[in-house]
Amino acid sequence: MTTSIPHAQQILLLFKKRGVKHIVISPGSRNAPLTIGFTSDDFFTCYSIVDERCAAHFALGIAQQLQELVACLCTSGSALLNYYPAVAEAYYSEIQLIILSADRPPHKIDIGDGQTIQQKNVYGKHIIYDTQLEIINDPSNQEHLVTNERKINRALNNCLSKYGPVHINVPFEEPLYNTIKDYNLDVKVMDVLKQERTVIPDEFYEQWSSASRKLVILSTLNPPVFTKEDLDKLTADPSVLVMSEVSSNVVHDKLVWGIDTLIAPIEFDDGEIAALQPDLVITIGGMIVSKKVKQYLRRFETRIHYHIGRRRAYDTFFKLAAHIKIAPSEWIHKLPENTISSDYQQQWLGKFRTYLSKRPDYLAQIPWSDLKVFELLFNALPDDITLQLGNSSTIRYAQLFPMNASHTVFSNRGTSGIDGSTSTAIGAATAVKNRTFLITGDLSFFYDSNALWNNYIPRDMKIIVINNSGGGIFRILPGEKNEDYFNTYFETVHQLTARQLCDMHGLDYHSVDNELAFAKAYKSLSSCNNRPQLLEIFTPRTVNDEILLKYFQYLK
Amino acid sequence: MTTSIPHAQQILLLFKKRGVKHIVISPGSRNAPLTIGFTSDDFFTCYSIVDERCAAHFALGIAQQLQELVACLCTSGSALLNYYPAVAEAYYSEIQLIILSADRPPHKIDIGDGQTIQQKNVYGKHIIYDTQLEIINDPSNQEHLVTNERKINRALNNCLSKYGPVHINVPFEEPLYNTIKDYNLDVKVMDVLKQERTVIPDEFYEQWSSASRKLVILSTLNPPVFTKEDLDKLTADPSVLVMSEVSSNVVHDKLVWGIDTLIAPIEFDDGEIAALQPDLVITIGGMIVSKKVKQYLRRFETRIHYHIGRRRAYDTFFKLAAHIKIAPSEWIHKLPENTISSDYQQQWLGKFRTYLSKRPDYLAQIPWSDLKVFELLFNALPDDITLQLGNSSTIRYAQLFPMNASHTVFSNRGTSGIDGSTSTAIGAATAVKNRTFLITGDLSFFYDSNALWNNYIPRDMKIIVINNSGGGIFRILPGEKNEDYFNTYFETVHQLTARQLCDMHGLDYHSVDNELAFAKAYKSLSSCNNRPQLLEIFTPRTVNDEILLKYFQYLK
Repeated sequence: MTTSIPHAQQILLLFKKRGVKHIVISPGSRNAPLTIGFTSDDFFTCYSIVDERCAAHFALGIAQQLQELVACLCTSGSALLNYYPAVAEAYYSEIQLIILSADRPPHKIDIGDGQTIQQKNVYGKHIIYDTQLEIINDPSNQEHLVTNERKINRALNNCLSKYGPVHINVPFEEPLYNTIKDYNLDVKVMDVLKQERTVIPDEFYEQWSSASRKLVILSTLNPPVFTKEDLDKLTADPSVLVMSEVSSNVVHDKLVWGIDTLIAPIEFDDGEIAALQPDLVITIGGMIVSKKVKQYLRRFETRIHYHIGRRRAYDTFFKLAAHIKIAPSEWIHKLPENTISSDYQQQWLGKFRTYLSKRPDYLAQIPWSDLKVFELLFNALPDDITLQLGNSSTIRYAQLFPMNASHTVFSNRGTSGIDGSTSTAIGAATAVKNRTFLITGDLSFFYDSNALWNNYIPRDMKIIVINNSGGGIFRILPGEKNEDYFNTYFETVHQLTARQLCDMHGLDYHSVDNELAFAKAYKSLSSCNNRPQLLEIFTPRTVNDEILLKYFQYLK
Repeated sequence: MTTSIPHAQQILLLFKKRGVKHIVISPGSRNAPLTIGFTSDDFFTCYSIVDERCAAHFALGIAQQLQELVACLCTSGSALLNYYPAVAEAYYSEIQLIILSADRPPHKIDIGDGQTIQQKNVYGKHIIYDTQLEIINDPSNQEHLVTNERKINRALNNCLSKYGPVHINVPFEEPLYNTIKDYNLDVKVMDVLKQERTVIPDEFYEQWSSASRKLVILSTLNPPVFTKEDLDKLTADPSVLVMSEVSSNVVHDKLVWGIDTLIAPIEFDDGEIAALQPDLVITIGGMIVSKKVKQYLRRFETRIHYHIGRRRAYDTFFKLAAHIKIAPSEWIHKLPENTISSDYQQQWLGKFRTYLSKRPDYLAQIPWSDLKVFELLFNALPDDITLQLGNSSTIRYAQLFPMNASHTVFSNRGTSGIDGSTSTAIGAATAVKNRTFLITGDLSFFYDSNALWNNYIPRDMKIIVINNSGGGIFRILPGEKNEDYFNTYFETVHQLTARQLCDMHGLDYHSVDNELAFAKAYKSLSSCNNRPQLLEIFTPRTVNDEILLKYFQYLK
């Protein structure tokens, strides 16, 4: 059985031919033809999620893991506006998300019908491709069939080749629920345009060879782009200093894996920090998490910046010389042998290691706090897991700890929103073999509380909520913390706990509020894999900013 | 104390001069200058709500009640995308909402900075006016000061005169937290353009006088536009049949207040229903809720349609002759005396009353079900309350019951979304003197579950959730109910209850699942006014569609 509506069938058939398997459906009537079609064909794996904000983040999580096209389907009206936070995240994180929104026929827009808005082009600049299909009631209307086939193919091909969200708005006229026994039309797949590729300019080779201080920054890398040999070759050059972020999923002993740990202790010491200034900066990967390195490279004017890789490039330091669109490993293989004498790497890697050597003492002496909890957590986490990190405190704290090479790490750093971390993590967890651990803050967790209204949470998934009773990150930012308005309008202090949400949605709940009890609480979290488990770690609200600040001072 | 940033001060001062008092703030750092400014000036009443989707609906509820400009303030990034569902609702419901989004400076957009998207014009066609201010660091920059003053004034004036949401995007450069003792600049208010007004065309008078069958439909009316004398005059004309919807807040003994009750019993009897066809249709108010009357007036082609009133007009029946932009009461006063003989009103008001006379028998015999619950509720509700209705089953059921003239009734019928009914009701409840009762369905309630994460819920507010374990409305729509996919992807069956959310957010919880216990449960809901109360009414999942269908058959 499938829908009898021709243009719905065209979507179904082209999705099959292109291997778009995972479809996240939110309930509605206008989208009935596609809901019936997707759920009646065993090719598709369908998911039902009511809140579209969660549904789209869930789909984004699946796409993030599988590195393939994943679709969301919703009804007409404000439904697709609730997709928008995830669409923007997909746009900036370069994730292949297809938005299918059902709509009324164009002549019934803005005439006062219910659940109707201006759906066409609604995602503005945050979409790779946006199209609206023709309504086809008569399957012999060749012109409309060909037009739609082209539009759907273009959407899929753009999503495939440009790595980002696409939107197909699909108007349907009633009746919506009619079915037939099997597909009664055929579709043709259009070839994807060959991906643009650039050569390495001669100028780059000259600049590279003459620079004695080259800084390479590895930010979000998904999928992984380097082998150990690549990194061996890159770091064998003494003039190359490589900094990596937690979401780069790169581990190597010659990396500065804690950018803030290196920069924060000396950031206000102009003499010392000036010495870090590179002649040439290379970025590889998506958005850079560390604010400190971005501020640094704007303040101490970057001279030349190249971005390497096939995805998007940003002129983050206002000095982008070129975007070299080749695979990063290929770029490494084409690098010339070093001929210049330099102690750039040795000097800064040495300083970083000195700072690291002081960490254990500081961490051993601090009281129960966010930083202490992250230390305990990163010591306790098992090997071979997928680690999902919420925004923004969580990923910033995680950047202070060395990553376990057997972990893969993800975070919604496209828009860095707190609006869908849990939903994304759950979607991702359904799509990977490894167990998924989500670590998130309280505001981020409660913001996305409907994420738990989800029948697909893997039974071995672990959620860890670090609850410091508000937006603790605002204590770390500048501004007066003792004013009346601060608690209410910045930190937004609350007394909520995750206990009731766990009870409501069938997760086992554990909690802990001190160091002595941590090991036992963590054990109870990790021991049961028959039901999703949530551990809520309560930390004091007001000590965290000071402990973090003193950490950087101590390292120096 | 206030912010030292000049363009933030311009907003604060113009809001004060224009009387924009209510500011709903979501936490963030980029919006710090305005958060500090609003919360430091006693003129403003500020609210702190974390989830922007809830925050904007909450603001919309305040504006709905006060009929004045209400503002939301958020940080940069995906935050303002979460406002979008409420922005679209405000656009189609013509509610005066001001969106203030903080942003990074324009040269820092799309260069890889965190929490940054393309915020300018993000609301596309669903905004009355969209502007971006100039950054002013130097308060002697007269050109920028004057430009911003004009932009803010235009935003406020558009919001005031065109009844809808406006967006002011406000870039800020660091430092964000600097303050000074008092405002150090001045602003000028620009006059609002006189509102457009049209005269009644001569043609209208001719058509009105010669039509023996005139149908007047009163949909959402907020604020009220008629006195009893207006309605006496209008209904004194025997050729005028007036239909009203529950959100029209109009009660009069010569109205057909239950449109579906009149149409549904005969909608498939072409002979009978053809006789209802009017010569002339007048609409007054916002979106029409009744699908049946819209379908009817498209099927039995409407000849001439006029929309009366100063707000927007929709060509709902594809026959809009003109939009007469004068106050509806003024229009009534200008209507000529009737000179034509007609039994149009008598015939259909008679039929409606005959149907009504059969209701008690049917309602007395039905089992525990959604329809029974609505009967019990409407009998039990006290006088002088504000009634907020969720989408879509709730308002459709409510339309089957006569309204209490002392109630005022509201529902988000702009986009008819389920995404913010509870938040809107809570915002509205904070702004009215009367007690507020919200009646909502389970999907709508759980969708907006973060609505309860709100410190402003009036202690005497009552929330009634009718929980039939899924989207019961899909059972009433066409389509096959016995297929496997139906329960999961259309009805989205669940076992959730509101109990845990009440526990989490400090509401008293009551529940009932049968008629015998209803009175006691309702009493427990209404007796305590020291804490918000929630009554969850569990009804069976599968009987409701049949009971409703048979109701219409029984009336005939």
